[in-house]
Amino acid sequence: MAKTLTRTTILDSLEKIGEEIKVSGWVHTVRAHGKIAFLDLRDRTGFLQVGAFTSELAEQFAKLGQQDVVSITGTLKKREEKYINSALPTGTIELEAKELTVLSKSAEMPFDMATKDLHLELPTLLDYRALTLRHPQQQAIFKVQEQIVEEFRKAAKELGCMEVFVPTLAPSASEGGADVFKVDYYGRDAYLTQSPQLYKQILLGAFERVFMISHAYRAEPSVTTRHLSEVVQIDVELAFIEEFGELLDALEFVGTSIIKHTASVCKDVLTLYGVDEPLIPVNIPRLTLREAQKIVTERTSRDLSRELDLNPEDEKEICAWAATEHKSDFVTITHFPTKKRAFYTHPDPENPEYSLSYDLLFKGIEISSGSKRINDYQQLLGAMKERGIDPSGFTLYLQAFKYGIPPEGGFSFGIERLTMKLLNLANVREASLFPRDMERIDERLSQVDQKTKKKS
Amino acid sequence: MAKTLTRTTILDSLEKIGEEIKVSGWVHTVRAHGKIAFLDLRDRTGFLQVGAFTSELAEQFAKLGQQDVVSITGTLKKREEKYINSALPTGTIELEAKELTVLSKSAEMPFDMATKDLHLELPTLLDYRALTLRHPQQQAIFKVQEQIVEEFRKAAKELGCMEVFVPTLAPSASEGGADVFKVDYYGRDAYLTQSPQLYKQILLGAFERVFMISHAYRAEPSVTTRHLSEVVQIDVELAFIEEFGELLDALEFVGTSIIKHTASVCKDVLTLYGVDEPLIPVNIPRLTLREAQKIVTERTSRDLSRELDLNPEDEKEICAWAATEHKSDFVTITHFPTKKRAFYTHPDPENPEYSLSYDLLFKGIEISSGSKRINDYQQLLGAMKERGIDPSGFTLYLQAFKYGIPPEGGFSFGIERLTMKLLNLANVREASLFPRDMERIDERLSQVDQKTKKKS
Repeated sequence: MAKTLTRTTILDSLEKIGEEIKVSGWVHTVRAHGKIAFLDLRDRTGFLQVGAFTSELAEQFAKLGQQDVVSITGTLKKREEKYINSALPTGTIELEAKELTVLSKSAEMPFDMATKDLHLELPTLLDYRALTLRHPQQQAIFKVQEQIVEEFRKAAKELGCMEVFVPTLAPSASEGGADVFKVDYYGRDAYLTQSPQLYKQILLGAFERVFMISHAYRAEPSVTTRHLSEVVQIDVELAFIEEFGELLDALEFVGTSIIKHTASVCKDVLTLYGVDEPLIPVNIPRLTLREAQKIVTERTSRDLSRELDLNPEDEKEICAWAATEHKSDFVTITHFPTKKRAFYTHPDPENPEYSLSYDLLFKGIEISSGSKRINDYQQLLGAMKERGIDPSGFTLYLQAFKYGIPPEGGFSFGIERLTMKLLNLANVREASLFPRDMERIDERLSQVDQKTKKKS
Repeated sequence: MAKTLTRTTILDSLEKIGEEIKVSGWVHTVRAHGKIAFLDLRDRTGFLQVGAFTSELAEQFAKLGQQDVVSITGTLKKREEKYINSALPTGTIELEAKELTVLSKSAEMPFDMATKDLHLELPTLLDYRALTLRHPQQQAIFKVQEQIVEEFRKAAKELGCMEVFVPTLAPSASEGGADVFKVDYYGRDAYLTQSPQLYKQILLGAFERVFMISHAYRAEPSVTTRHLSEVVQIDVELAFIEEFGELLDALEFVGTSIIKHTASVCKDVLTLYGVDEPLIPVNIPRLTLREAQKIVTERTSRDLSRELDLNPEDEKEICAWAATEHKSDFVTITHFPTKKRAFYTHPDPENPEYSLSYDLLFKGIEISSGSKRINDYQQLLGAMKERGIDPSGFTLYLQAFKYGIPPEGGFSFGIERLTMKLLNLANVREASLFPRDMERIDERLSQVDQKTKKKS
């Protein structure tokens, strides 16, 4: 009879006190005490304590290991007052087991998976990614990431943007730079897009306001705590911009909406990671690069007058200033030198050495970048020529501007960096399910080398 | 004074009759009649007729060309009864222009963009993609595509799936096949994923039910009307499957939900494309491959007894049968030969020559494919060995199964094929913003060759 029961998820079991139910999941941990035994079962909705109170069942429980996959039928009971665990949503209940079925046996754990913290170094965490992602603390990161994207979609739609899907294989490097992955495309060279930039600008001609969740690739020949070779990039592009400030408003609206709403929906995860509620004032402080540099110089005595960008130390410093002076975890920096930004960036008409560009910083790091774009066809051709970029790889892009594109601009975020900063993670790799960099693609590349050596 | 007006979108202008407003958009077409002139303006919300009733303004209008980008201020008026165009949401109003500003001039059109149909051959449609996407008939395709993805997300969430983001750069070819794009990954070989298959299975161990909107790549060395080299793939994977039928239920739920709700939300586009409401009965007909082949043989006298799959003609025939006999545009085919499916496909325990696999057909074509998977670690290793697949490129994938994965399965759709079939388009390229195949990556590759030749 028990076998015909359909499965109840752990969270739904709360409503079935006194009933016979079947639950299925992974064994998180087992506590065997001779004739009785307990296990904590994990499924996608949470954890449930299951008790074995006959010696036969207790023996079966004692043979289980962490991560074994099981189905258990039994009667759902209320716990006695003294056994209630108020830290768990299911801390008031317990399943009294009647029958255990093992669906899949796990190999022995290389480390304890049932501790509150995993206590693993990053390389080990990633070497065992298929296993470590099952730890509640790791899972929580990606529930936050899911919410970030959800909030992004909501904010972009509020701006009137349409969702579009753009390719990642392109005939040329969008930013004209060197850090690009080359693909063998039917015997020719193609490239993985450094950003969906060119396509989102083309699409403005049709859809006026667009957003996209895409992949961006950078063949970064270095390993830092904040760069990955493949990221999920979320982009917005808006046409009919009349004033530069409209772009800053849109940027700050999207950035703060994502952070504010995700922090609210995922409050439990922020608590788990010991993170305070983000500081988001009504007005985000805005500074030009030169203003920001002056403030950093005042606070640190470092001379930045010859610097064309903020380095990571400067970003931390200006964010510390914003937190103190404006009670803001965000600060917007504008007017970066034209020659430091991509060819399509619009120079400031009042001082073309600087550009109508911006970065949004959050808690010490740049989380978004963008600009007003050059929308005049001839001016765009001139900007490409000036930088030695061959227009022949940009046929469709230039076609869009040849046939009329309005004044426009946009910005993008990487979801991994947003996730990292919202949870104060030390390394962006912790915020990517399967991070890619020059040292790893699933496995460490040094280990791949060793395997190859052994074979030959 | 007019200059300080903020822009009103065309659809919002309906609520501003009698007011002075500013609209901005693209000139769709101009009709100059000497001292008066009219133009149809396009923005993201629709079309608006604008009249110039002074000779000065009429002259300015007469100089405009299709796709010029303009801002126009004027007074919004109700049209006289006899001028009402009931086919347009804005057919009851007209803007009486006072001032025109040209924001960006377009080059002269290579073809008329203001006709109801574009009447272009597919290669021309794609050669001018940055321009042709501005045509209402083309735009409509991608509004349908946006809705398809939206309905997919809703359906997947109803199944309890979490949204995850997986990489497209992988250390090995997921299906073990030949049609894979190779990437220069820091001086080593990496590959573009043929599907997110391996990653979604890994993630089941953590999240139990997942969905993803990802990119899939196939280096197809042929050109057909139904294949692309890069597609947007939407995937679902579900753990704790107790019976094969649960997977078919989920597949049909997702497939029919997408089509039913998109057809309803985008009814106007279906009308534009002359497409009838899809036939979706309560129960989708289900056939094993062998049953389907028998039906095709009965209807066509073609002998399929030695065929291991349905070819495109068979798919059309069995869909014609389903439409006639079951009033269904959908039909589910199961139990394909094990050796014809990917290594992770679960053989049918009652007859291992056939597998617990399935395709969902819609209007004559396969739109989704999937299977119950092998979830036993040793069995999986055996299946790889049998097919000569080297497990060393599958480290994380195999790790997941080593540490316990429950019985599971899933399926995927390509959004381009869904869009194509819902609108009865002749070629899948029409349903991709920027289609990639062996003959094209933005430009036709033959044209790229010519350019290269000229330079050298």
